[in-house]
Amino acid sequence: MQSFVSVHPSSHFPLQNLPYGIFSTATDPTPRLGVALGDFVLDLRAIKRAGLLSGPELSAHERCFEQPTLTAFMALGPPAWREARATLQRLLSAGEGALRDNLALRSAALLPMADVTMHLPAAIGDYTDFYASREHATTVGAMFRGEANALQPNWLHLPVGYHGRASSIVVSGTDVRRPWGQALPAAQPGATPTFCPSAALDYELEMGCFIGAGNTLGQPIPAASAADQIFGYVLVNDWSARDIQKWEYVPLGPFNGKNFATSISPWVVTPAALEPFAVPAPPQDDPLPLPYLRQPDGLRANYDVQLEVSIVPEARGGTGGGGGGGGSQGKGAAGAGGAEATVVTRSNMRTMYWTLPQMIAHHTAGGCNLRAGDLLATGTLSSAGPQGAGCLLEATWNGTRPLQLADGSQRAYLQDGDTVVLTGYCQGQGYRVGFGKCHGKVLPALPPQ
Amino acid sequence: MQSFVSVHPSSHFPLQNLPYGIFSTATDPTPRLGVALGDFVLDLRAIKRAGLLSGPELSAHERCFEQPTLTAFMALGPPAWREARATLQRLLSAGEGALRDNLALRSAALLPMADVTMHLPAAIGDYTDFYASREHATTVGAMFRGEANALQPNWLHLPVGYHGRASSIVVSGTDVRRPWGQALPAAQPGATPTFCPSAALDYELEMGCFIGAGNTLGQPIPAASAADQIFGYVLVNDWSARDIQKWEYVPLGPFNGKNFATSISPWVVTPAALEPFAVPAPPQDDPLPLPYLRQPDGLRANYDVQLEVSIVPEARGGTGGGGGGGGSQGKGAAGAGGAEATVVTRSNMRTMYWTLPQMIAHHTAGGCNLRAGDLLATGTLSSAGPQGAGCLLEATWNGTRPLQLADGSQRAYLQDGDTVVLTGYCQGQGYRVGFGKCHGKVLPALPPQ
Ligand SMILES: [Ca+2]
Ligand SMILES: [Ca+2]
Ligand SMILES: [Mg+2]
Ligand SMILES: [Mg+2]
Ligand code: NI
Repeated sequence: MQSFVSVHPSSHFPLQNLPYGIFSTATDPTPRLGVALGDFVLDLRAIKRAGLLSGPELSAHERCFEQPTLTAFMALGPPAWREARATLQRLLSAGEGALRDNLALRSAALLPMADVTMHLPAAIGDYTDFYASREHATTVGAMFRGEANALQPNWLHLPVGYHGRASSIVVSGTDVRRPWGQALPAAQPGATPTFCPSAALDYELEMGCFIGAGNTLGQPIPAASAADQIFGYVLVNDWSARDIQKWEYVPLGPFNGKNFATSISPWVVTPAALEPFAVPAPPQDDPLPLPYLRQPDGLRANYDVQLEVSIVPEARGGTGGGGGGGGSQGKGAAGAGGAEATVVTRSNMRTMYWTLPQMIAHHTAGGCNLRAGDLLATGTLSSAGPQGAGCLLEATWNGTRPLQLADGSQRAYLQDGDTVVLTGYCQGQGYRVGFGKCHGKVLPALPPQ
Repeated sequence: MQSFVSVHPSSHFPLQNLPYGIFSTATDPTPRLGVALGDFVLDLRAIKRAGLLSGPELSAHERCFEQPTLTAFMALGPPAWREARATLQRLLSAGEGALRDNLALRSAALLPMADVTMHLPAAIGDYTDFYASREHATTVGAMFRGEANALQPNWLHLPVGYHGRASSIVVSGTDVRRPWGQALPAAQPGATPTFCPSAALDYELEMGCFIGAGNTLGQPIPAASAADQIFGYVLVNDWSARDIQKWEYVPLGPFNGKNFATSISPWVVTPAALEPFAVPAPPQDDPLPLPYLRQPDGLRANYDVQLEVSIVPEARGGTGGGGGGGGSQGKGAAGAGGAEATVVTRSNMRTMYWTLPQMIAHHTAGGCNLRAGDLLATGTLSSAGPQGAGCLLEATWNGTRPLQLADGSQRAYLQDGDTVVLTGYCQGQGYRVGFGKCHGKVLPALPPQ
């Protein structure tokens, strides 16, 4: 499968991928739909206006391609998504002349990725975060309650989740300010709380999915058809302030420890692109989940996504890291100032215990309605292995065993100026289907008010 | 203060109130802005088109009155809200002829409340629920942990809150389906969970506020100016399935136990209307809150809102209760079929420990951004006194001490066909500033799939 656009084998965005995103350009600041291909972005509004997105499913819904978000396209559901993908894959293939040989359209619609600014893919109505990695839940549980009580009694019976904050979801490349918050002084757990900048700022390596058509309030989505609700996937960094979270979370869950920012990668990778990389999810036979959480035999799958997190300290001089549209996967998101990246997490989505269709079935089992553009995140994706911890809480055993970075410095938790870079891809035969990067730089806390 | 529209002294909607809502009519199904006055609704779109909403603040923003929600009007902030209120109070007053004597406009713009259908007031981006009543937190804490440990260590230091589900917020009058969910069989806490219709469906009497202009991500709202962020207040019924909630909520908080539905009253009562009923909030001197949670001396206030919850069982024959647009406060929301209402809660907002400005200051202290139309709810508002419990969990001591209803039946938790009616008002000299009703009827769970 070849495109007339040349794509390097290490690119995350070959013709096999074609992820969707929202972009704008300096010459046209209107956010609009695009598809990534190698180092280019195909402008779907331009393609639609050229009459090239008018198959039987899409012709009645062409207005989707004139919107500032993907939400309306997400709402259309699998038949329209299939048609769009087939149309675009054909249009961009080496043997098809409609775009290849139309030089005016090509220069108007195929834009260098380096020239675009990426935006949030959807108007996110609600954001839900789960806790679906057994490795993560077990390690964190052991840390706070000991090995014997590592998993809470409910954990193997249902995908534990909570409602997150939608307003503070930001696209990759957005700086994240260290939050102030209320916490107990670390050394004196019996003391009274203070209000300080968080001293335990963490990343959480997660993946998320955007919801397609959704469901009517009161009408659950069965596990067997829940996969049809998934428009596509992104990387998620659920920034977390562990000191704030620890003091506030009993009994109603995390709040200010999480809601100051959640970063997502800008390109939404579709189930169709990931399908060749589906792998059986870890077995669930002890206990067997209740029937409403069971997917048909052989269909309970994750994807073999190789995930990685790096920390890039601020370059001496102070302007390295951060910035950029987040679209390019070739160059580092940081490092312009010469700062060195250190890989701090290597994990894989394949080890996730609860699948996203199971999370959707659970989320809606009582009738809760999902809407097009809602985001469901997996929770921290930790795996076994030396660098398998998906957050610093785990990797440093709550800050007590600092990590060594390549520049000689140590990290118990994140420092001001650190850029956290998430990336992930599936390795095919001679090509990769990837997510690009999700990066964000830590800004110092505001001065005292 | 008199209107040319006659308003009964027991009405919740005199000229002193003028709450905002979104309504439509059979002849014009477009949702639009309205103001309640007695048994009428003033159509603000019609008033705007007649050129009567064009003061210095509003003239640049007249498009707000052509929207299908209040969100854009909410975003304008206090100066515009003040101007709109002054304009409308004058326009509707007995001595002003512009509307009173324009019979064509009057018949087009002043519509009988009985003829309108109410909708959600805003596009709610995020919904947050707090836990701000000390009486409620103490009773529930004592129930599960004993008197000595009733309040969690953090409770007196910060307004505990969690993110709720925005998609399932419904306007008063919407039926609520009993959720299925995972729970432990009540009698055998060590047993494995089952998937059943909730056997512990509860109401929670709360109030909520809609956010006005909001804040930029990363920029906290100080406690001293947080009140300026409040556009207005509604009644909130945070329907809760206690059996589902109990099994799921450790460690990340309530999820499916809450997200199947939250009902709100349709009329948004403004701070200006409630201002005469401001009362000092309970003192906070042991412990004193941290400075970021302190409001200026004398400004830490609640309102003297008399709150009441009734349960109306389904009338024999099966069609009583529910229905209607939720706008009228004169007639019962239920009882058409002859069923009797029993008051099960009498409480008051004045006893709330944490004020809404304190909740706003805490919510944004780490930089979390609030947006116009966001809803913040107080948590269950319980008060001292024989019927002061704001939910059945408290009132029946987790179902173990059933309530007696007027029709002779008992309630440990809600039964199918029950209509729950919240109401509340402030009593002035010869008038009431009220919220109308927030009602919803419990539908039986779906049949097994
Ligand atoms: Ca998380
Ligand atoms: Ca509540
Ligand atoms: Mg977050
Ligand atoms: Mg609720
Ligand atoms: Ni009604």
